Amino acid sequence: MALSGSTAGKQPTRRRLLSGAALLAPFPALAAWAPAGANPGHAGHGDSSQSGAGAAAGSQPKVPAGPAVNHAGHAGFAGGSVAVDRAGIDPTAILRDFDRGRTTTLPDGRTLREWDIIAEDKEFEIAPGVTFPAWTYNGRIPGPTLWAREGDALRIHFINASAHPHTIHFHGVHRAEMDGTPGIGAGSIAPGQSFTYEFDATPFGTHLYHCHQSPLAPHIAKGLYGGFIIEPKEGRPAADDEMVMVMNGYNTDGGDDNEFYSVNGLPFHFMDFPVQVKQNALVRIHLINVLEYDPINSFHVHGNFFHYYPTGTMLTPSEFTDTISQVQGQRGIVEIRFPYPGKYMFHAHKTEFAELGWMGFFEVAPQ
Amino acid sequence: MALSGSTAGKQPTRRRLLSGAALLAPFPALAAWAPAGANPGHAGHGDSSQSGAGAAAGSQPKVPAGPAVNHAGHAGFAGGSVAVDRAGIDPTAILRDFDRGRTTTLPDGRTLREWDIIAEDKEFEIAPGVTFPAWTYNGRIPGPTLWAREGDALRIHFINASAHPHTIHFHGVHRAEMDGTPGIGAGSIAPGQSFTYEFDATPFGTHLYHCHQSPLAPHIAKGLYGGFIIEPKEGRPAADDEMVMVMNGYNTDGGDDNEFYSVNGLPFHFMDFPVQVKQNALVRIHLINVLEYDPINSFHVHGNFFHYYPTGTMLTPSEFTDTISQVQGQRGIVEIRFPYPGKYMFHAHKTEFAELGWMGFFEVAPQ
Amino acid sequence: MALSGSTAGKQPTRRRLLSGAALLAPFPALAAWAPAGANPGHAGHGDSSQSGAGAAAGSQPKVPAGPAVNHAGHAGFAGGSVAVDRAGIDPTAILRDFDRGRTTTLPDGRTLREWDIIAEDKEFEIAPGVTFPAWTYNGRIPGPTLWAREGDALRIHFINASAHPHTIHFHGVHRAEMDGTPGIGAGSIAPGQSFTYEFDATPFGTHLYHCHQSPLAPHIAKGLYGGFIIEPKEGRPAADDEMVMVMNGYNTDGGDDNEFYSVNGLPFHFMDFPVQVKQNALVRIHLINVLEYDPINSFHVHGNFFHYYPTGTMLTPSEFTDTISQVQGQRGIVEIRFPYPGKYMFHAHKTEFAELGWMGFFEVAPQ
Repeated sequence: MALSGSTAGKQPTRRRLLSGAALLAPFPALAAWAPAGANPGHAGHGDSSQSGAGAAAGSQPKVPAGPAVNHAGHAGFAGGSVAVDRAGIDPTAILRDFDRGRTTTLPDGRTLREWDIIAEDKEFEIAPGVTFPAWTYNGRIPGPTLWAREGDALRIHFINASAHPHTIHFHGVHRAEMDGTPGIGAGSIAPGQSFTYEFDATPFGTHLYHCHQSPLAPHIAKGLYGGFIIEPKEGRPAADDEMVMVMNGYNTDGGDDNEFYSVNGLPFHFMDFPVQVKQNALVRIHLINVLEYDPINSFHVHGNFFHYYPTGTMLTPSEFTDTISQVQGQRGIVEIRFPYPGKYMFHAHKTEFAELGWMGFFEVAPQ
Repeated sequence: MALSGSTAGKQPTRRRLLSGAALLAPFPALAAWAPAGANPGHAGHGDSSQSGAGAAAGSQPKVPAGPAVNHAGHAGFAGGSVAVDRAGIDPTAILRDFDRGRTTTLPDGRTLREWDIIAEDKEFEIAPGVTFPAWTYNGRIPGPTLWAREGDALRIHFINASAHPHTIHFHGVHRAEMDGTPGIGAGSIAPGQSFTYEFDATPFGTHLYHCHQSPLAPHIAKGLYGGFIIEPKEGRPAADDEMVMVMNGYNTDGGDDNEFYSVNGLPFHFMDFPVQVKQNALVRIHLINVLEYDPINSFHVHGNFFHYYPTGTMLTPSEFTDTISQVQGQRGIVEIRFPYPGKYMFHAHKTEFAELGWMGFFEVAPQ
Repeated sequence: MALSGSTAGKQPTRRRLLSGAALLAPFPALAAWAPAGANPGHAGHGDSSQSGAGAAAGSQPKVPAGPAVNHAGHAGFAGGSVAVDRAGIDPTAILRDFDRGRTTTLPDGRTLREWDIIAEDKEFEIAPGVTFPAWTYNGRIPGPTLWAREGDALRIHFINASAHPHTIHFHGVHRAEMDGTPGIGAGSIAPGQSFTYEFDATPFGTHLYHCHQSPLAPHIAKGLYGGFIIEPKEGRPAADDEMVMVMNGYNTDGGDDNEFYSVNGLPFHFMDFPVQVKQNALVRIHLINVLEYDPINSFHVHGNFFHYYPTGTMLTPSEFTDTISQVQGQRGIVEIRFPYPGKYMFHAHKTEFAELGWMGFFEVAPQ
């Protein structure tokens, strides 16, 4: 972990982050995102979120990091999200970036889709002054969202340009030797080596892929994961908008928990840059949980309800709600229409995840 | 935290409570609810629950607190629940207390329902000798169960008589400015200020409301939550009995976990005062989880099965079982018929929650 | 806890096990299952799982324990599973061991099924050099899988030959006095005493039984649990193979967490002895979670999808997926067909559970 101004033995642990600004004195850069008024018992702690939530992105930076950090004051935090160009992660761009691969037609008439996925080590600045030495697929966290239609033939050319052995393990149906599990088929792919995973796109649904190298926890948590969408052969009812949200966390101190949480890789990003949607439009969200170290994650949207399709493998929803949960590897489709314009929060309904970055806004434009 | 007889640095932490009576020596009042025989390895620890579970409420108090504490000996605990008048919380009264508000008819024929909700700081005695400085809606934990029919117009007049800023955030569909999120619309309501939330009752289901002020964890966990029931326009099949159960916890030492758990606010209460139901009657329970700090809660009933309707938004059940789970903010309807008379436990199927208060009995009267 | 070669105050805690071999120096026997390369940040840690996963059971033992320990190297662990005769647990035998009891026909034409269940204290070697002083039903972990048909009359003759009071609490519908709850009916059964539980088999589904004596956590976690299957009166669609998998954990140091996890009682067993199934066959798995101390467990299978029936109480599945979760006491039916031959992992999609023993393989034989 690389921490500006860090002191040996004084890493920004989750406990320290959640316990208030005072304890962060040794970390000037970190003081920016310490929770304000964390002592619930004292009288008159201010509503620090008032100024922040409504402010425009980039305005009035209050932290030393300057204009590279977006506006301060999300729900108790004095810090803001890191600007996307400095962070190296753009969660908004990732939302609607479905990678359909290079397509050709096979002799049997089926579509062949091909992708190149390169494992590479890369640093990101995930919070003001906090760099995360990630392991990535194609230099992104999360990796590219691969999109295919049910029945397509798929070829994923994997090149390991990282310093560590890795694999790609897909959730989906395939032969054992294409599973990306060490010891089976090609198994672990050594640095400098490559392998092509080949299988058909089935079953339709919202899936994921991740590294399955041992030790497994860091091989997932350091960034090696992404969405894998298989559209039903006959399609789904037309949506007005479609996006992917990957819920993750960052263990920055090598302990056994996360200090930051996010959707699409950058804590608090969607507080500063709300997800833009349109009133009454059908918005389809592929929601995927890859969170390591914690037992379960959740998704709650304010003031609106959604239909939920677990794993996206059935065409009728299992639930109509505003809150669902997912353990690691679970995923599903959220279909939502916003009847009114305005800004609506979405976040984990696990407070500590939310307060450490897993919160954001939908901004609904009038029809 | 206010603890009768507490010693600095020796708060009744969750670990200490779960590890046995011996460790509680510094807390005479707390020794009452230390688990008996907590060391599983020793031979011959007694079945301390034998005497207790069948005893009548209020009989044979064994703790210094005297008659204000109910009978001793729930499933390993030597202490009992605090008497409701001393505790300031009556979970049995809360069970069937649906607050339908003041109703008038609007020009368009719809029903308008109005409520006054006052945030006020108040202390409760949640366990023998343990007072909890709560933040409440209308002086209750949980707050009033608001009941409306789908399509009704709702007005909730919120007055903040607490020393802290608060909001009411409803789970339900409404405009952004009625969401009770700081920074949106009226946002945070300062001490001495008020605000009227207005929206229509939709969608039908079992919902909840809670404070959304930052820092969020204490603003929920200190008691600012309640049930919010929207009956379908056409109604549900007639039930013989209908009740609400709100699952919560108490963090009494300002740490990051709970020392007590309950349904409807008072640990162990339903061990001493079983929920009275009738054989073969259809009992509809609105079950709501607001538990903070823990990742997930659960509900198990002994010797009987129930149909479960997640969020209560569909009229067909998703499951027939005796055990379900809910993350914070999740809720649903439990529909159950008891085929035999007698006493049946219900509790979290998470042992530590149960042993720290989240357990009780249904007592089924013969038909 | 009994640990070969243990040193006072240096028990193999979960943290120590997950943090790497170096810390295990005081435990020569335990070093066998320390994770290799647990420090994710260092360059060039080897793929230790390569050699192991493909090796034949019993080949090339690399640990001092000799041939009693199976092959080394599961997904980062240098140790293997303990041989079943030495361990005292045979998870493979348990898979398809449905105990239908002694049957007679009642005057009303119904089938009466009877079982003898004896609580007895017994030690198992659950990992190389680690003995676990268990409390068991019939000397097994998990206890026998009781099988009945909906509507049968059941009699379970319980004899307590353990040094501690115990009960059998069944998940299923029955009268209060047959519930196995201390204080209700016969309640707690003292050492040397016995009791016969009598009830009818209803409702159909996948259920469980466990001890309900206080303190509850050890009375479950020390081994007192088993599966309880009620077949629908009209049967289910014919399966080609049917098995039970009980997910559990072992708290070996008396702390508040588990150091080992398993399916059917023996950590890593199914890594060395994959579950043998046939290509395209319909495999029905009764999956039951009894895990104590942790909030939630999960089941993921590689490269294949399954239909899931929560609690097994409905004949239509609720989900088609590769990952589901269960809190303690939850259970369900997994129905799966493997379209391709080969070896496919299954494990908790909670990495630490997997790396501490809750992982295995299905080996699919060509049709």
